[in-house]
Amino acid sequence: MDKVITIGRQYGSGGREIGEKLAKRYGIPFYDNELITRAAKESGFAEESFQNAEDKATNSLLYSLAMGINVYGNQDFGFSGLSLDDRIFLAQSNVIRKIAEEGPCVIVGRCADYVLKEREDVVNIFISASMDYRLKRAIVQYGLEEKKAAGIILKNDKRRGNYYNYHVGEKWTNLNNYDLVVRSDVMGIDNAVECICTYLGK
Amino acid sequence: MDKVITIGRQYGSGGREIGEKLAKRYGIPFYDNELITRAAKESGFAEESFQNAEDKATNSLLYSLAMGINVYGNQDFGFSGLSLDDRIFLAQSNVIRKIAEEGPCVIVGRCADYVLKEREDVVNIFISASMDYRLKRAIVQYGLEEKKAAGIILKNDKRRGNYYNYHVGEKWTNLNNYDLVVRSDVMGIDNAVECICTYLGK
Repeated sequence: MDKVITIGRQYGSGGREIGEKLAKRYGIPFYDNELITRAAKESGFAEESFQNAEDKATNSLLYSLAMGINVYGNQDFGFSGLSLDDRIFLAQSNVIRKIAEEGPCVIVGRCADYVLKEREDVVNIFISASMDYRLKRAIVQYGLEEKKAAGIILKNDKRRGNYYNYHVGEKWTNLNNYDLVVRSDVMGIDNAVECICTYLGK
Repeated sequence: MDKVITIGRQYGSGGREIGEKLAKRYGIPFYDNELITRAAKESGFAEESFQNAEDKATNSLLYSLAMGINVYGNQDFGFSGLSLDDRIFLAQSNVIRKIAEEGPCVIVGRCADYVLKEREDVVNIFISASMDYRLKRAIVQYGLEEKKAAGIILKNDKRRGNYYNYHVGEKWTNLNNYDLVVRSDVMGIDNAVECICTYLGK
């Protein structure tokens, strides 16, 4: 397998688990929080600045307003005139590009599909699932309170959608952004992994 | 294989070919123009009224205007007060439901995913492909003139998108409408078929 695999995923759909299983299957690196850590180290930002950067864009308007009140003109990172959030995105993007240069891997989230769009060895995958399935999974896997679970899922999806929309300028849920979209609930997580492997050519 | 498979597809993506191959693989009926013919016979409409009904909605506004000038109040088909286009859609939907009742099959286009949304044995698939690939394929397969091919592809996609949007009330390209979305160009038509079969569980 000679591809860089990017995975977008709805909250609670099992996209991260699928990504880990793919990486294990092919014996290639898996990047999620590892990516954040690496980006933080290389760019000199404090690690906590990168934590959940993807979850910061609560909605486009708030996001834009937040940009306006962020620190401008900090030349330390070579991104003067950009908001902190934009500088974090650029630093992450640089790391994603370096990682892809190093060879086949799995990268979850962070608009990696968009960041790597000039490369020809990238396969962009999206994992979706019904709300029902995600509710049950999030309660078991992430220990969410039953009463609050639905709200948390919707909020996280909205944040991810806004983050993608803000940085890529396209809808997160537009199928044209991906090579393969797999619903994980109908046939299960392991079946989704098999399906992706078949697509990639075993 | 005990499913009803619906296939939406971008013009020139090979969705029809993939549908035929799936039907052959599973030994189940394939419905495309056959569906139109059957709908025409059962409802009493002239067959030509059904030809390319899907390609009639050039855009939402034009479509709405066209509805206004269509014949109203024709009680012959039991859809009085509806435009001709809406009556055709309802007649087609009835046929799609009857076909699904008969057992596993492949149905291409005509918002079958939406029409059958109450059934639990339906898998909704969408086939996409890059413009470049669809251009080459449409010129070879449908004999389109090279100069006109891009325009014809865009026009047909727009019509299909508007048709879906009008009848379903959702974006045709929203990945949440489908269980599986496969780009046919990157890995090829036969690989797309294999991928779908893996998803369905061989």
